[in-house]
Amino acid sequence: MRAIGCLELEVSSSWSRADRDKDAVEKNFKMSETLLIVADSERDANMLYATGLFVPDPFIYLSFDRRPVLVMSDLEIDRARANAPHCRVVSLSEIQRKLRREGVKQPKFAQVIRHVLREKKIHRTIVPDNFPVGLARQLKKLGVKVKPEANIFPRREFKNADEVRKISAALMMAEVGMAEGMQALRLSKIDKRRRLIYRGTPLTSERLRAIIDCAILQASGLAANTIVAGGKQGCDPHERGFGPLRANEPIILDIFPRSQRTGYFGDITRTVVRGRAGEPVRKLYETVLHAQKVAFARMRAGTATSEIHKVVQDLFVKRGYKTGRRDGHMEGFFHGTGHGLGLEIHEAPRVGVSSPGKLKAGHVVTVEPGLYYPELGGVRLEDVALITGDSAKNLTRFEKVLEL
Amino acid sequence: MRAIGCLELEVSSSWSRADRDKDAVEKNFKMSETLLIVADSERDANMLYATGLFVPDPFIYLSFDRRPVLVMSDLEIDRARANAPHCRVVSLSEIQRKLRREGVKQPKFAQVIRHVLREKKIHRTIVPDNFPVGLARQLKKLGVKVKPEANIFPRREFKNADEVRKISAALMMAEVGMAEGMQALRLSKIDKRRRLIYRGTPLTSERLRAIIDCAILQASGLAANTIVAGGKQGCDPHERGFGPLRANEPIILDIFPRSQRTGYFGDITRTVVRGRAGEPVRKLYETVLHAQKVAFARMRAGTATSEIHKVVQDLFVKRGYKTGRRDGHMEGFFHGTGHGLGLEIHEAPRVGVSSPGKLKAGHVVTVEPGLYYPELGGVRLEDVALITGDSAKNLTRFEKVLEL
Repeated sequence: MRAIGCLELEVSSSWSRADRDKDAVEKNFKMSETLLIVADSERDANMLYATGLFVPDPFIYLSFDRRPVLVMSDLEIDRARANAPHCRVVSLSEIQRKLRREGVKQPKFAQVIRHVLREKKIHRTIVPDNFPVGLARQLKKLGVKVKPEANIFPRREFKNADEVRKISAALMMAEVGMAEGMQALRLSKIDKRRRLIYRGTPLTSERLRAIIDCAILQASGLAANTIVAGGKQGCDPHERGFGPLRANEPIILDIFPRSQRTGYFGDITRTVVRGRAGEPVRKLYETVLHAQKVAFARMRAGTATSEIHKVVQDLFVKRGYKTGRRDGHMEGFFHGTGHGLGLEIHEAPRVGVSSPGKLKAGHVVTVEPGLYYPELGGVRLEDVALITGDSAKNLTRFEKVLEL
Repeated sequence: MRAIGCLELEVSSSWSRADRDKDAVEKNFKMSETLLIVADSERDANMLYATGLFVPDPFIYLSFDRRPVLVMSDLEIDRARANAPHCRVVSLSEIQRKLRREGVKQPKFAQVIRHVLREKKIHRTIVPDNFPVGLARQLKKLGVKVKPEANIFPRREFKNADEVRKISAALMMAEVGMAEGMQALRLSKIDKRRRLIYRGTPLTSERLRAIIDCAILQASGLAANTIVAGGKQGCDPHERGFGPLRANEPIILDIFPRSQRTGYFGDITRTVVRGRAGEPVRKLYETVLHAQKVAFARMRAGTATSEIHKVVQDLFVKRGYKTGRRDGHMEGFFHGTGHGLGLEIHEAPRVGVSSPGKLKAGHVVTVEPGLYYPELGGVRLEDVALITGDSAKNLTRFEKVLEL
């Protein structure tokens, strides 16, 4: 997806300690500690990871022994019992009825959690870093202490074969969208004003985005914020793109759907020119393509992520492509080289200038160098790499062509 | 969307104090207090409400005077400056450089926030209830105290004319999807095994969902988890539906897209039978339709939300439709009558059994009674109501027909 900043944005992700060594990863936190999560699992990746269940509203997850407990509303309880057999599913409304009998007027999540913990004589739990502070305060008042932990599921960073398959499937959905988008560009005619005309009317970013996203829907993916940004628009890496697309200038297509079945993300970017690319754009493209190859060649277990990013930065500088602020806007290469991909579109490890970690076997990361200059447009190419002991396997199969 | 539980799930929403009186709403919290939000604005509705800016990664929002401060990464800063003119946008990387010069090795959000607050000699802030507890602890160590507040933007609950227009536009996207879905059902033929055949092949829930969601995409909406649930599947109100659709049994279509332009949600549910509905299903449908009318007739500023819900419950009981657990599954009417609609699909006020509040002018809520019995299937009808002083205006225009 949309490239991320070079700077570690540690807040949304539970993965800021990507640098932990493998041993620590194997240990996880002590089995004797209780883990508490309260979140919906459509937006919270840890909750989805823990339960394997899509639930749109927040619910309670507690693991104090081998079999975690889920506290579910009447609306979800049957589905949870059927689909999360590894958990003990208990009824929220039953606990609330019990609490009302005990005199709690409006039993909320805090009281319910306290009730479940009290039965096990537990007074403190680990929570993920993004646990809501409001609920933490309510629990404290009830005598339950929570201790935030940055990395509650260290294993999430390391993808097993099943997860790699799921990511590959989501990536294939992205590639289906890309193929559909490319086809529409190829079939477009060029009018006198250099506008692309598709089936008789101008092809806009919005229209091409809908074509791509529909193809992905039909393949069971859900694509949000697909980028179709032509010319100067491509120079803002998070601009989704709008208005008529034109011939002879770079168009960035960045597609990052989520599989509706598994919740895993795919992510791909291609840059194309419908018509002819000028020499400077061609050179820009070749440089980005080369940078991606160089990055891939360096990627293996043990390499520092910052080293990968620096290799790309250095190459761009060597080729004369400067990065910095000009006329009040950033230009050059001003985002990270990549990011982990999984149940979140941006997760650990980050591959950027200030990312502290090392690549490890089982990491799945994007490799997406880009260069952006207002007078030329933007060029970004993005594939997905699976890190193994001695190399990086490219999970992306889609071709790279500049001119269509 | 998918009906919500009767029970107030207060955690994800900042709106658990829906019952505050209008005065308090006008006041908001004291202007002298500083509000801090750290979140991305694609998932966090308060951040979107505060900034009007779609940003996929977490950033910092601080309001200590009339002009809030946004701390943005290099990647977002230009777009933020262009699109959030009501805010002062400052550079994250510049602050981080400054902090590094001061000896902070890896300046994270906590240090950056402390730095910005220190300049204003502020040591404590209000935060939303869902503020990440991990960051709250880091701030505490740096001498910044946070106080969670359940309802940081009380005004969010009351939709102004512009917001009503935006919700109506999103609702129209939902109606476009509904029309497209109905059309596919109408054009389907019925084979000997009662399966619906559309353009030569069986019409499945998955295929009909893709047809609906594509139409919404083309109308600039994004529909996730659209429900197309036939027969028994419809009895689990959160089941999205799968497999071949069949004639002569109810099919629930529940469509709740988000406008990609504004972030506001629309929400509609219709139940239809392709072919002929049996007498029991017809009676079920008429009862749900009547319950919706009765609920609408009661809705106006000042009515308790629990009263609306009770009216629906009582009607169902009076007509002989029991609610409860049978053979281990919930049946009858076991979800809320409605929920607030806005930048979140489920927001305040809730219209359910334990919802404490009253309806007020400017509330926009769904009205979605439903009845579910495994032997008949499920029936749910959902429109969107805008509450005014003396009535509820139905914002939904789409027809209600049982048989297609």
